[in-house]
Amino acid sequence: MKNTNGDIARDVRIAYIGGGSRGWAWKLMSDLALEPHMHGEVRLYDINQQAAQDNALIGNKISALPQSCSQWRYRAAATLAEALEGVDFVVMSIVPGTFEQMRSDVHAPEQYGIYQAVGDTAGPGGLLRALRTVPIYAEFARAVRQYCPDAWVINYTNPMALCTRVLYAVFPQIKAFGCCHEVFGTQKLLAAAINDMLGEPTPPREDISINVLGINHFTWLDAASWQGMDLFPLYREFADKHYTDGWKDKELENWMTKDAVFRSRHRVKFDLFRRFGLIAAAGDRHLAEFMPASWYLKNPQTVADWAFGLTPVDWRIQNRDKLEQQAKRLVSAEEAPTLMPSGEEGVRQMKALLGLGDFVTNVNLPNVGQLAGAPLQAVVETNASFTRDGVRPVFAGALPQGLHAIVMRHIQNQETTLQAALQCDKELAFQAFVNDPLVNIDMDDARVLFEQMLHNTRDWLPGWKL
Amino acid sequence: MKNTNGDIARDVRIAYIGGGSRGWAWKLMSDLALEPHMHGEVRLYDINQQAAQDNALIGNKISALPQSCSQWRYRAAATLAEALEGVDFVVMSIVPGTFEQMRSDVHAPEQYGIYQAVGDTAGPGGLLRALRTVPIYAEFARAVRQYCPDAWVINYTNPMALCTRVLYAVFPQIKAFGCCHEVFGTQKLLAAAINDMLGEPTPPREDISINVLGINHFTWLDAASWQGMDLFPLYREFADKHYTDGWKDKELENWMTKDAVFRSRHRVKFDLFRRFGLIAAAGDRHLAEFMPASWYLKNPQTVADWAFGLTPVDWRIQNRDKLEQQAKRLVSAEEAPTLMPSGEEGVRQMKALLGLGDFVTNVNLPNVGQLAGAPLQAVVETNASFTRDGVRPVFAGALPQGLHAIVMRHIQNQETTLQAALQCDKELAFQAFVNDPLVNIDMDDARVLFEQMLHNTRDWLPGWKL
Amino acid sequence: MKNTNGDIARDVRIAYIGGGSRGWAWKLMSDLALEPHMHGEVRLYDINQQAAQDNALIGNKISALPQSCSQWRYRAAATLAEALEGVDFVVMSIVPGTFEQMRSDVHAPEQYGIYQAVGDTAGPGGLLRALRTVPIYAEFARAVRQYCPDAWVINYTNPMALCTRVLYAVFPQIKAFGCCHEVFGTQKLLAAAINDMLGEPTPPREDISINVLGINHFTWLDAASWQGMDLFPLYREFADKHYTDGWKDKELENWMTKDAVFRSRHRVKFDLFRRFGLIAAAGDRHLAEFMPASWYLKNPQTVADWAFGLTPVDWRIQNRDKLEQQAKRLVSAEEAPTLMPSGEEGVRQMKALLGLGDFVTNVNLPNVGQLAGAPLQAVVETNASFTRDGVRPVFAGALPQGLHAIVMRHIQNQETTLQAALQCDKELAFQAFVNDPLVNIDMDDARVLFEQMLHNTRDWLPGWKL
Amino acid sequence: MKNTNGDIARDVRIAYIGGGSRGWAWKLMSDLALEPHMHGEVRLYDINQQAAQDNALIGNKISALPQSCSQWRYRAAATLAEALEGVDFVVMSIVPGTFEQMRSDVHAPEQYGIYQAVGDTAGPGGLLRALRTVPIYAEFARAVRQYCPDAWVINYTNPMALCTRVLYAVFPQIKAFGCCHEVFGTQKLLAAAINDMLGEPTPPREDISINVLGINHFTWLDAASWQGMDLFPLYREFADKHYTDGWKDKELENWMTKDAVFRSRHRVKFDLFRRFGLIAAAGDRHLAEFMPASWYLKNPQTVADWAFGLTPVDWRIQNRDKLEQQAKRLVSAEEAPTLMPSGEEGVRQMKALLGLGDFVTNVNLPNVGQLAGAPLQAVVETNASFTRDGVRPVFAGALPQGLHAIVMRHIQNQETTLQAALQCDKELAFQAFVNDPLVNIDMDDARVLFEQMLHNTRDWLPGWKL
Repeated sequence: MKNTNGDIARDVRIAYIGGGSRGWAWKLMSDLALEPHMHGEVRLYDINQQAAQDNALIGNKISALPQSCSQWRYRAAATLAEALEGVDFVVMSIVPGTFEQMRSDVHAPEQYGIYQAVGDTAGPGGLLRALRTVPIYAEFARAVRQYCPDAWVINYTNPMALCTRVLYAVFPQIKAFGCCHEVFGTQKLLAAAINDMLGEPTPPREDISINVLGINHFTWLDAASWQGMDLFPLYREFADKHYTDGWKDKELENWMTKDAVFRSRHRVKFDLFRRFGLIAAAGDRHLAEFMPASWYLKNPQTVADWAFGLTPVDWRIQNRDKLEQQAKRLVSAEEAPTLMPSGEEGVRQMKALLGLGDFVTNVNLPNVGQLAGAPLQAVVETNASFTRDGVRPVFAGALPQGLHAIVMRHIQNQETTLQAALQCDKELAFQAFVNDPLVNIDMDDARVLFEQMLHNTRDWLPGWKL
Repeated sequence: MKNTNGDIARDVRIAYIGGGSRGWAWKLMSDLALEPHMHGEVRLYDINQQAAQDNALIGNKISALPQSCSQWRYRAAATLAEALEGVDFVVMSIVPGTFEQMRSDVHAPEQYGIYQAVGDTAGPGGLLRALRTVPIYAEFARAVRQYCPDAWVINYTNPMALCTRVLYAVFPQIKAFGCCHEVFGTQKLLAAAINDMLGEPTPPREDISINVLGINHFTWLDAASWQGMDLFPLYREFADKHYTDGWKDKELENWMTKDAVFRSRHRVKFDLFRRFGLIAAAGDRHLAEFMPASWYLKNPQTVADWAFGLTPVDWRIQNRDKLEQQAKRLVSAEEAPTLMPSGEEGVRQMKALLGLGDFVTNVNLPNVGQLAGAPLQAVVETNASFTRDGVRPVFAGALPQGLHAIVMRHIQNQETTLQAALQCDKELAFQAFVNDPLVNIDMDDARVLFEQMLHNTRDWLPGWKL
Repeated sequence: MKNTNGDIARDVRIAYIGGGSRGWAWKLMSDLALEPHMHGEVRLYDINQQAAQDNALIGNKISALPQSCSQWRYRAAATLAEALEGVDFVVMSIVPGTFEQMRSDVHAPEQYGIYQAVGDTAGPGGLLRALRTVPIYAEFARAVRQYCPDAWVINYTNPMALCTRVLYAVFPQIKAFGCCHEVFGTQKLLAAAINDMLGEPTPPREDISINVLGINHFTWLDAASWQGMDLFPLYREFADKHYTDGWKDKELENWMTKDAVFRSRHRVKFDLFRRFGLIAAAGDRHLAEFMPASWYLKNPQTVADWAFGLTPVDWRIQNRDKLEQQAKRLVSAEEAPTLMPSGEEGVRQMKALLGLGDFVTNVNLPNVGQLAGAPLQAVVETNASFTRDGVRPVFAGALPQGLHAIVMRHIQNQETTLQAALQCDKELAFQAFVNDPLVNIDMDDARVLFEQMLHNTRDWLPGWKL
Repeated sequence: MKNTNGDIARDVRIAYIGGGSRGWAWKLMSDLALEPHMHGEVRLYDINQQAAQDNALIGNKISALPQSCSQWRYRAAATLAEALEGVDFVVMSIVPGTFEQMRSDVHAPEQYGIYQAVGDTAGPGGLLRALRTVPIYAEFARAVRQYCPDAWVINYTNPMALCTRVLYAVFPQIKAFGCCHEVFGTQKLLAAAINDMLGEPTPPREDISINVLGINHFTWLDAASWQGMDLFPLYREFADKHYTDGWKDKELENWMTKDAVFRSRHRVKFDLFRRFGLIAAAGDRHLAEFMPASWYLKNPQTVADWAFGLTPVDWRIQNRDKLEQQAKRLVSAEEAPTLMPSGEEGVRQMKALLGLGDFVTNVNLPNVGQLAGAPLQAVVETNASFTRDGVRPVFAGALPQGLHAIVMRHIQNQETTLQAALQCDKELAFQAFVNDPLVNIDMDDARVLFEQMLHNTRDWLPGWKL
């Protein structure tokens, strides 16, 4: 890792893989512009080259805004090599495949009564998405080894655990971790509970001290405090109070009025708290997918009863179209970019890795013991200590046995999926498929569905015999 | 362990817990009578004291038979203390609870469409049986610690893994292992395949060299050979040949003509071989219970299609009655006892532990690494080396990932069950209940069934708040 | 852990075992007085009851000073039970045995040419000290289990690793950690190097970010940075510049002019850096004792050449006498107490545990994986994350193999010593004795010395057959 | 592994690396000739091609003897590739370097008062030998991977642990194990004790059942029995009886009258038994080298007192010359070859691997847990179960802590040596050098000696900067 001069890091080089993105990329641009202690270059790489070029233009506009506190040059990179060569950081945030594959992931299982709220992590959708993502990430790992072996890699792509796992499987010396904001949302819920139950002003989520343990999107808190107060008794009362009707996030209820597809009123979270005694730290749409199908995802009515939304791929397509329109307006200067902190931690993490401020936050890393009882190498989510050129997991302890059993089942399925993907082994993939809690159907039906989903995503399965 | 003189062990003292048994106890008596190198005393302890006294009488008759090669004194012990004080070996083989509880274990779930062939290991029946067995075995462990801490304990009771696990959990220095003949049955099937496919005379099962790995009743072979020949290609052909109609064990088909309830034509075994590539080494009735309900146990028709039997508890009751009648005739000398090798290995194991012949065979022991990737302390089934005063597991390696995932799921469930039983924790027990592959029903139905089954077995759950 | 109200913790109860101390106790009193966010009671327990009573008086005077920011009541506790009952924190800081035993620890080996600078951690002195400390700490652990099982225990007594290890061996659920300021001294040396080499003002030691790994008094840094700058290249130049003459700590050289016995000019540290490439993070007097005798402790001339001091027990006795005089003056009000931050972190740690400010610092804890490759349960020193009611180790990674081998040797010796002490096993203790790098003498001489040292400390070895 | 037909294995192909050997190679030829169930081809490869060709001739003569029970073709292979291509077994038994390097290994340290009895495993000689052997074995591993990845590799070369370790480090899927007859010698000593103490006829060593644990040449028995009798009490009396004068092996005392250089009267073994309570299972010459120098190897007089021999390299040279003369006579038919069982187990092991007879014996294998508490991957010596195409370690348990500490020290040193050799890292090699118990000299002297020994073996250190 480069040395900084005093408290300013200059000439920081960032590669953004998936740099044509209209969501995460713009957030990063905004966060970089608002951070005065780092300056440098961002190289945007995307298989949609036009999108990367548009984003380079937008990024440079953002950096030039009068409110911007820093200087960043954005440029599109034509190849992975060009993007990665000698960089300090690599941000990975891609959509593996197209919305057609995602449609199959999410909706094909519905014919057999399998409903998924997101379909990108667990469930049949998560599996298929993993199968097509693993070879892409294996290629990324080889490219990092070749072009920037000392760079820090920050992954945002789902399935988070397997993306991170592949990077290490292919290049064990890689310095990679995975980031996800779901835990932050739970900190915000705890902050809201403080306001709701105690009448105190809602504190910022960073003030909620937590111990995080589990796997991405099925992450748990076994300790939470604020100003020396144990938040578990408070959360118990809060969960009881809102168990039946759920809790409406003020923020979300406003800006997403029409978009019930992302909605959640935390009823799943409250129910899991009652059952297991720990605070589930992910959105209900994700959490539900890790439990047996009959619990929260039996059918659309059950989902409605639990007050969370299934996110249809059509919604994602419409959203993409809107963002494409906005990108055009930004490029053509019809619309001016704005600066707003994203709430993500990527920039703060980069600062810490440059030696400009140690802190502790939750990330996804291969297990070296931080999640007690979980297999080594499995990617788990816990707190980690960020320092100059170092991300070191904090020992989080063990989950209670009942939850441990569920987490272990998913970790084992992820491992089966990884091996199936790396070896292009269809039978092994099917073994993972039928071992998923959502795949609660007849063996023969499961086979038909599996074959069909594999067929739908076949263009992204190089080397498979299908 | 005592020293023997030359190749004869005298004054060997054996305690038999469950010594009123009319099956296993008589087999042991017969095997002891046929073994010329060991002599001594057997103390029979049973909560049914009359049965123990009858068996003492029968045992002494057997020892006195002219064909008997050894001298053994049998006596009933009034208390556990009297049975255990200073013995060299403890055999544990009990029925936890009565047939009324077993009826609930096996048949109560049928109301919700959950069918079990045996119901004593996995599934809702296995769980409830475990809950009432754990406190009994905890008491046994404390008694062994007090009265015969150096004795070797041989367990035959199911659920095998949890019985053995509890003994070590309560008294970590115990010298205990669990024995089961299911693997022998698979060796016999391989011997039959040699005869069927090669035309060779059926070899004795001991000549089939195998590597054993897994958990009791869900045990696997990843190597099998006979006279230097790899048996896997042969078994593949054999399984294909008999896949549709199954293989009829000559021996079984004869003597159990009317008792289809124990029948199996190995179709489940053949199907699992095709799916996972390893030879499943337990009876189909057991194997089926470890897989998702829809595979082999969806309903009675599915079971019939797969050509194995569900064993109703009524059959067990009738069988018990028959054996009681036979016991009466043996006691009254209406019927003379006969000597026949049981095919069990208990006596050979005792000989080895006395230093009269090392050998390697499969047993259930806490994992110290012999099943790679499985948690330490979980009770697993692999080969072990038997020597004087020593049972040392042989490293069996790892299961292929797809099977490993399934085995891990059951090991985790066993661990949850153990903790629930030791802590009398109903919610934890329910978490194990709903995580079982056979409990594939609505959350609310599952709760009702669970409460009912707990209620049915409540007399055997001391310390629980029900 | 109690809940605090807002940012002030009231009614905090602290037990101080060894509370008659005139060094550490006064420092704690001063630090508590300077901390405005905590108030409560300190119970002083000491086998020297008069000293505890005097200290209670002194503590109350300190708390009453006008500059004091907090209210603390000090009182002497007549028994361990009285001291511990229901407290939130236990501070343990004792001298095991008397200076007569310490004289034997440090000086008896000199007859055989074995020189020790401190003699309280490794070497023959460290072993004997451990043998008499282990039973005392075993008693402490039992008392904590009985009187305050939820309290946090902070240990300052040496041998640090074994004191902490015993607490967990006897009461595995204890919440204990060990603190030592040696690493802080190395941070200060790095701060001095920044001043010396760069001309920058000497930064506070807390600004030096480090990764800590090893065992107490043989602790290492494999990463150190300041304001984003990697300090390893700088330290290399600094070590080279001062390799021959050593570096004189300004602070120490002033106030200890006459006390060369604690002196060190860091030549050992520089030499170890050249050999192993990591920064040794303890005083040279300690570090030297972990290496083979011939390296730095061959004889007094070698010690002088390496520019550190051997600390004679006579010096300790004189120092004690001085402090006793000062205690009398403080009690009689001849002398007024003064307030000065001690530089220790105990009070900051208590605050964090009360939920009043998370931070990361180095402590001694049982290994759960934080020191890669070291046996689980061995007490190791790494960073840990302090939060409300939580101390969770940060994964520090592995030492380079050459250092790992040396650390493992000492960890194994500590484990042998622990078992010997717990089992009162003289032969096992001797095996640890002759396996120490400083005990580089003939087997027969070693035996004579060992017997003599055991004899000298026999009054503190209850249950031993000597 | 090939299938055999019935109980005869034909067309077995063996590569013998170091096939010009006049000791081990002739033994193997003899053992193969005496074994009726295996036939095939042996390819002899040696950097001394003439020796390999001579041995091919001798081997064919041996196979043609009338008493020979089998048909084996011997031929010299010109290249490693030619030797290995498609074989079933690889025997590795080489002398790394020449006697000139060995002279340096054994005798150079004597200038500094360091005496070694063998100098091929531990001590400065063992280290230097390892440094030049590791690159050779790394090449062997790559060749096996390329030419016969499924072959079983049997290593006889010292340093045994490191040779085996390198094979796995370079080619993790290799099927290799290391064999050593030292444990057999201890079984013979126990057989002799039975005769000496009980007056029973000396039983064959195979009848002594043992549990083996430790590392090669520092291997231990914690259980030994014969016909059900625990041999530990007997061995204690035997060791006491012969403690002062030692025990004279009848066999050895006869045929080696003039060769005191290999002599041992087991006094070291008896002394270690008294100290640690376990039976050391290697020759005294080896055992002494693992302990601190002052114990058994202080100087030639100490060695004489302990009644074992230092083996000078001159003796080895003379012995080689004698064997060369014998080889000439065998080639020229002046002398006829004779058949005599060697007492080695290589041929029996091959038979077992071909599926012609399972058995359990002790071998050197990477630790997967069989030596409790030892690091995984370190090569340890325990029993293993040999079956068709399988060598699976038997769990041996843990050494008592005092011995465990010593074994761990050597395992760590081996690991340091391995890394130094693979990375050609001189400083790391020196760290291993000064951490050896025999290197009990001043740091500066140690450096001079190390540099000199490295210089002496420089021709065998490709890639090193010297």
